[in-house]
Amino acid sequence: MPQLGFLHGRAWAALLGQLRRPPGAVCIGAVRSHSQGTRDFSPQQMVVREKILDMVVSCFKRHGAKRLDTPAFELKEMLTERYGEDSGLIYDLKDQGGELLSLRYDLTVPFARYLAMNKVKKMKRYHVGKVWRRESPTIVQGRYREFCQCDFDIAGHFDPMIPDAECVKIMCEILSGLQLGDFLIKVNDRRLLDGIFAVCGVPESKFHAICSSVDKLDKMSWKDVRHEMVAKRGLAPEVADRIGDYVQCHGGVSLVEDMLQDPELSRNKQALEGLGDLKLLFDYLTLFGIAEKISFDLSLARGLDYYTGVIYEAVLLQTPAQAGEEPLNVGSVAAGGRYDGLVGMFDPKGHTVPCVGLSIGVERIFSIVEQRMKTFGEKIRTTETQVFVATPQKNFLRERLKLIAELWDAGIKAELMYKNNPKLLTQLHYSEDMGIPLVVIIGEQELKEGFIKLRSVASREEVAIKRENLVAEIQKRLSES
Amino acid sequence: MPQLGFLHGRAWAALLGQLRRPPGAVCIGAVRSHSQGTRDFSPQQMVVREKILDMVVSCFKRHGAKRLDTPAFELKEMLTERYGEDSGLIYDLKDQGGELLSLRYDLTVPFARYLAMNKVKKMKRYHVGKVWRRESPTIVQGRYREFCQCDFDIAGHFDPMIPDAECVKIMCEILSGLQLGDFLIKVNDRRLLDGIFAVCGVPESKFHAICSSVDKLDKMSWKDVRHEMVAKRGLAPEVADRIGDYVQCHGGVSLVEDMLQDPELSRNKQALEGLGDLKLLFDYLTLFGIAEKISFDLSLARGLDYYTGVIYEAVLLQTPAQAGEEPLNVGSVAAGGRYDGLVGMFDPKGHTVPCVGLSIGVERIFSIVEQRMKTFGEKIRTTETQVFVATPQKNFLRERLKLIAELWDAGIKAELMYKNNPKLLTQLHYSEDMGIPLVVIIGEQELKEGFIKLRSVASREEVAIKRENLVAEIQKRLSES
Repeated sequence: MPQLGFLHGRAWAALLGQLRRPPGAVCIGAVRSHSQGTRDFSPQQMVVREKILDMVVSCFKRHGAKRLDTPAFELKEMLTERYGEDSGLIYDLKDQGGELLSLRYDLTVPFARYLAMNKVKKMKRYHVGKVWRRESPTIVQGRYREFCQCDFDIAGHFDPMIPDAECVKIMCEILSGLQLGDFLIKVNDRRLLDGIFAVCGVPESKFHAICSSVDKLDKMSWKDVRHEMVAKRGLAPEVADRIGDYVQCHGGVSLVEDMLQDPELSRNKQALEGLGDLKLLFDYLTLFGIAEKISFDLSLARGLDYYTGVIYEAVLLQTPAQAGEEPLNVGSVAAGGRYDGLVGMFDPKGHTVPCVGLSIGVERIFSIVEQRMKTFGEKIRTTETQVFVATPQKNFLRERLKLIAELWDAGIKAELMYKNNPKLLTQLHYSEDMGIPLVVIIGEQELKEGFIKLRSVASREEVAIKRENLVAEIQKRLSES
Repeated sequence: MPQLGFLHGRAWAALLGQLRRPPGAVCIGAVRSHSQGTRDFSPQQMVVREKILDMVVSCFKRHGAKRLDTPAFELKEMLTERYGEDSGLIYDLKDQGGELLSLRYDLTVPFARYLAMNKVKKMKRYHVGKVWRRESPTIVQGRYREFCQCDFDIAGHFDPMIPDAECVKIMCEILSGLQLGDFLIKVNDRRLLDGIFAVCGVPESKFHAICSSVDKLDKMSWKDVRHEMVAKRGLAPEVADRIGDYVQCHGGVSLVEDMLQDPELSRNKQALEGLGDLKLLFDYLTLFGIAEKISFDLSLARGLDYYTGVIYEAVLLQTPAQAGEEPLNVGSVAAGGRYDGLVGMFDPKGHTVPCVGLSIGVERIFSIVEQRMKTFGEKIRTTETQVFVATPQKNFLRERLKLIAELWDAGIKAELMYKNNPKLLTQLHYSEDMGIPLVVIIGEQELKEGFIKLRSVASREEVAIKRENLVAEIQKRLSES
């Protein structure tokens, strides 16, 4: 994807360029908040966050998505029983009279509720917003109780795997564009897992629980997962071993072909459907030119209850290590899958709308970029101010105020010192420190002669401009830079 | 402000232009959410909201503000007793173990907490985010339990009234830029009100309560407010009458001069400070060229407890009525003031940082624009898709997928139908309905000859483009339009 890389690379380079600008402001540092697991975001952090979010959103728009927003809290009953074992992490609001409410846990359930309530049968939307989870107070790096999610979903009855392939393509475009280093997208299918569980002899009532155990294979060894299946989930050891033979496999499209030949699996309807769709998905992803990024991984299970078909997860293959940079294990940075049953749960008549989507783990991406900037001591401009209005003169506030109002009214980003008699040197230093490119200097003599000094902060050159031409000259210089 | 009007007018005209685009999509309609007092925002609404927020934020940036973000919830103790009589409207989170938390009620208290915790002595920041208030379930139009605030604040020790005047200027720029019709900015000073209360014989313990009563003068008659003061607040009738003589006054800078001559008020230190600052404020606002928008209004009190000096509030003077448009009473659309004591409340040693700021009531502004659009049946594009990839051919999905990936990778916003064999007419209709300007048509013959048809949706003209030149040709056309 050379062109895509170029496109995104430019935006990213612009950010990095800005970060390296010499007269930038404060270095990025963590700011504590009193509420556990949440953070304030300083202006330095906000600049980075906004650049990253802009890149994610521009990709969503490139794929034709509309923007949607839903409230921070939902009726409690809308959220309960949607998230399986994680439901205990939902924040409830206090009962202060009226309805029982909970803070949203993700953006997917509110989307499904929106579709059902408004009887929307077809929609491609994105949603950028905060979600809240009562994660353990010991915050692992990049895991917080309040965090931002960026979701893209396609709802509607379509031919198989076309929207699904687009979702995987989007994850690829975003991760390539953000230049976080090499990555891999694991794919699997919930129906295939169910088929495997059935073939291995797991009772259907235990499918969800065993799926949750399999989901832990990215953090735990097979030995430990097997132990959980047997000791905690009550599975026969030989059943667990049969599962182990399957879920430890990973490979490319040839593994799909191999499994289609598996005498037992190929007799299971669920498994066959899953494998058939995975084959088609590989076909489409090959057409998209991204097959080499994809790994068919049978250990991928995704914790959430609502998935019904293909599931996927993007992992960084290594930290974006550069000389002297501390390693940072970030793991999964994007994930999603198909959830065909969720909308029907919110519809009084159970009418369903098939959906597939993805969520970008932007908090982890922010962590990586912040870590990178800390390591390199990169600096950043936190304002966009173009002109500073200064004076060497005492009692010149009124003249400065008149002048700056003229700049503001012309759409020029301008600041002045909120002092009656600031020192000229303080004003010039401030402009340099903040990376403001131009300083307008107004004094008694200039005023008398109808001229104003315009100073370039970088070159320290000063020229006299006719007062009536000042705005035009500033606009000319800004458009050239 | 002709230049400002022009600048903002252009952006606004672009929005309106987009709204009037003929092949636009669905009309704006209300979407119900199950949680009372909250709303989902449809893609149509999100387009309008984003345009308005962009204009507000660009004004904040023009004045050199940095962006800050804080969590949705704060420790409960941080919020209690900050909002006077309104504290009962704070949403608390359920005690699920750990800290007691509340949803933020505004963006000002979190800002003050941030300054104190991080020992920041000087900062000009803006914050766009949602806040939550348990308003009465009967939602007055434009008043919700979840709503967006756009705040700009200046913290630091500066010479009097310079940042305060800039805040009023910003409200002016935003309201002029949004072209909502004529508006007025009421100004007053809390110290002056306290001085008046003292001079009239109100016991100091009742200052806050009486201030709350005065605050109701924009919704209630003086007779009713007087009744509340006497019957509910226990004020002597003659004291209430003396207050009434003052708080029913409004005028320009000459009223400030008159009150400075008031024999009783001019002996009250608080009143004198307030009047002196108001005089200075009028002076600076005159230099800014906006004095004619300002009304010194002694009935302005602002409900919140934390204000300590100058206060202001922008009101629309009339609905943006056009022929056939239903009147919509929106009242106050922006407000703010000086709060010099709030940061000290969060500092263990009580070190304070003087602050002044403003908040734009964007929800009310959204309501006005929505109402306008409903009345005129204005339509809106909810996606930015530039190219639709279509085919007249059966079994041509693979070719479409290859082609669209090429467009995406070149940064072109493109969509296709998620069907194996869509009808050409359906594809063309969709492009027209969605306002997509270009359609790429790929078929067997074109493929054989190495050409692809490019169709302009508006003119319905089709030209054959060499396959290898397609991306360049599309980019050329898009840059021209």
